[in-house]
Amino acid sequence: MNTQSATLPADTAAIPELRLKRGEDRRLSAGHLWVFSNEVDTARTPLTAFQPGSLCRVVSDRDKFLGYGYVNPHSLISARLLGRDPDFLPGKSLIVHRLQVAQSLRRSLYEQPYYRVAYGESDGLPGLVLDRFGDVIVGQIATAGMEALKGPIEEAVKKVLAPSAMLWKNDSGARELEGLPSYVEPAFGEVPDVVTVEEGGVAFQVPLTAGQKTGWFFDQAANRLALRKYVGGARVLDVFSYLGAWGVGALKAGATEVTCVDSSATALENLQASAKMNGLKPAVLRGDAFDVMESLHAERRRFDVVVIDPPAFIKRRKDIPKGEAAYKRLNQLALQLIERDGILVSCSCSYHLEPDSLVNAIQRASRHVSRFVQIVEVGGQAPDHPIHPAIPETRYLKTFFCRTVQE
Amino acid sequence: MNTQSATLPADTAAIPELRLKRGEDRRLSAGHLWVFSNEVDTARTPLTAFQPGSLCRVVSDRDKFLGYGYVNPHSLISARLLGRDPDFLPGKSLIVHRLQVAQSLRRSLYEQPYYRVAYGESDGLPGLVLDRFGDVIVGQIATAGMEALKGPIEEAVKKVLAPSAMLWKNDSGARELEGLPSYVEPAFGEVPDVVTVEEGGVAFQVPLTAGQKTGWFFDQAANRLALRKYVGGARVLDVFSYLGAWGVGALKAGATEVTCVDSSATALENLQASAKMNGLKPAVLRGDAFDVMESLHAERRRFDVVVIDPPAFIKRRKDIPKGEAAYKRLNQLALQLIERDGILVSCSCSYHLEPDSLVNAIQRASRHVSRFVQIVEVGGQAPDHPIHPAIPETRYLKTFFCRTVQE
Repeated sequence: MNTQSATLPADTAAIPELRLKRGEDRRLSAGHLWVFSNEVDTARTPLTAFQPGSLCRVVSDRDKFLGYGYVNPHSLISARLLGRDPDFLPGKSLIVHRLQVAQSLRRSLYEQPYYRVAYGESDGLPGLVLDRFGDVIVGQIATAGMEALKGPIEEAVKKVLAPSAMLWKNDSGARELEGLPSYVEPAFGEVPDVVTVEEGGVAFQVPLTAGQKTGWFFDQAANRLALRKYVGGARVLDVFSYLGAWGVGALKAGATEVTCVDSSATALENLQASAKMNGLKPAVLRGDAFDVMESLHAERRRFDVVVIDPPAFIKRRKDIPKGEAAYKRLNQLALQLIERDGILVSCSCSYHLEPDSLVNAIQRASRHVSRFVQIVEVGGQAPDHPIHPAIPETRYLKTFFCRTVQE
Repeated sequence: MNTQSATLPADTAAIPELRLKRGEDRRLSAGHLWVFSNEVDTARTPLTAFQPGSLCRVVSDRDKFLGYGYVNPHSLISARLLGRDPDFLPGKSLIVHRLQVAQSLRRSLYEQPYYRVAYGESDGLPGLVLDRFGDVIVGQIATAGMEALKGPIEEAVKKVLAPSAMLWKNDSGARELEGLPSYVEPAFGEVPDVVTVEEGGVAFQVPLTAGQKTGWFFDQAANRLALRKYVGGARVLDVFSYLGAWGVGALKAGATEVTCVDSSATALENLQASAKMNGLKPAVLRGDAFDVMESLHAERRRFDVVVIDPPAFIKRRKDIPKGEAAYKRLNQLALQLIERDGILVSCSCSYHLEPDSLVNAIQRASRHVSRFVQIVEVGGQAPDHPIHPAIPETRYLKTFFCRTVQE
């Protein structure tokens, strides 16, 4: 890190200061990376003087250097820290360093090159997500500050990961809040329409441009493997199946019958193509998950294992009451379809849904259908989505493996 | 369950009523099993009329049957439910049924007969724990109500599990609150001094009478196996090692050097005997964990992986502030001993320590030693310790796998 220090003083001076109000450096000192707008001493360093995405030096009211960051005057989160070393300016070399540290964790834990390489704040790269599909990298930028560093990011990716191609999947809803346009475009190389992910001995076909988010939900990978011990000889229902990661994996692990439910025709087409490639035959049902589950119930269909892995029902704090009701309804529908001694895998990726609220939703749903439930395993994010202990928002995934028994 | 109903009316009448105050049936209706003393209509059914451990029929103020339970007038928890089926009286046959349901879960998930067979409230057997060491069962009773059912429990164990021997390890601190004596005695069969547990390909020697709790901590088994992917080529420190489940397992998984720390000479003797049986050679240090860690720090010893799996520092709510300070101190000592890109496995089995408080202790300790920490995995109780979703007390174990990086 010190190799750059000789050339720094001049550069550093060119980076404008963002001064915090008295006492407002506490969160950053405790390890957090965010500065909220009401914490900035706007009298001395007006936010309006900053272009969205421009770099800053964050200092306390007592002139203590707290770190380099980037600013967005239009966002509630006015600045996010990129580094705390005064001698190490944000740029390609810092991103290379962060990627090396991030990649070394994944390389030590994953046998195959399918994982999230960089998980935003938790890997010291706020606003940036990079997923690795073998030789292809898919990136997602959520903030103006990272968008401004797009060039250096691409160079750093080439240097550390040396992929054959990289795609920017910059179409997440979060970008609008940062005043960023929505687009999907290749960063470099020949980006294929479809890539392959191997998980637990199954090769899955993943559509990149047409897929959800970056294309694959690596965060559930460990939980999907954990499911395998429950599915031998079982009839499995995989609701919100997307590309079939749970369901097709369950077939591979010895489930006798798997039904995958999703509303997307594209997802189900890819799911069936993957299953076929692996010599497996799931049934698929296209439709709204709630409607399909109600029909299955009306038809008196029963399953030994039901997985419900919905998209986030609660995107903002104000959606909590409505979202909680939806989770409760969903769990109730699922429990109705499960045999006496069966397994419910109930997931939520809503950060705003507290783990205890989901437990509560499951418990209330179980009482509603006169079942008793034991929570046998509690899963979270796979290790390629590390949690930043000072930033609760980095921990969002909840997966409960529940056993239903009659009282 | 209905086979008994013909003979029941007479028996049922013999079981005295415990009547709740108006509205106090809500917790039971929501799935909980406990009745607190202030919820009982003592004017109509005085608690003093009950012998500790005697059976009762719990009814609402509107005469609704809520379940059969047992009473302890001297405990804050006045009654615990044993069953909600009016036709199924508590006794051997109910316990047989509960054990069959519990055992079927374990049999489906465990390849070898080493696990907790019955986990109290979560398996519908409040106050009873049964651990299985192959052919030997170790039982622990925590309540007067279960103590009164000791005979039927032994018969049920014989019927469902058919072990060669069973030991009552009835010496837990919780018994005093229930007015129960502390003792260790065989229930039946020839109980050996030492039994064997196999975990991840390692055979461990477990002293029964001289061991902690039931002899082995099955609750951490899944987390100990999860550790294995982090220890290849690593120097590992196992603090509060007890019989070496973490440390000796790490050696088996490819750690180059393992040091186990415990205050008990008996534990360390058994640990070394187990290691020898498996052809493995850990170093052992006997002493107070805090003192030993301070000495290691003074000697500038460093490790790649440090596991801290202490006994519960917080046994009662009033110990929370002191306990939190101890967890913080412990995590700080551990972090000081870890190499730059190392792993801290930080555990707590204190129910009264909130998961977020432990995260906070880790985070504050990391800032204190100027490290950055990523939480890579979050572990809980193994599946043989299921969580009762309506009883938060059944969920107590927290295990955080943290990676330390320099900022």
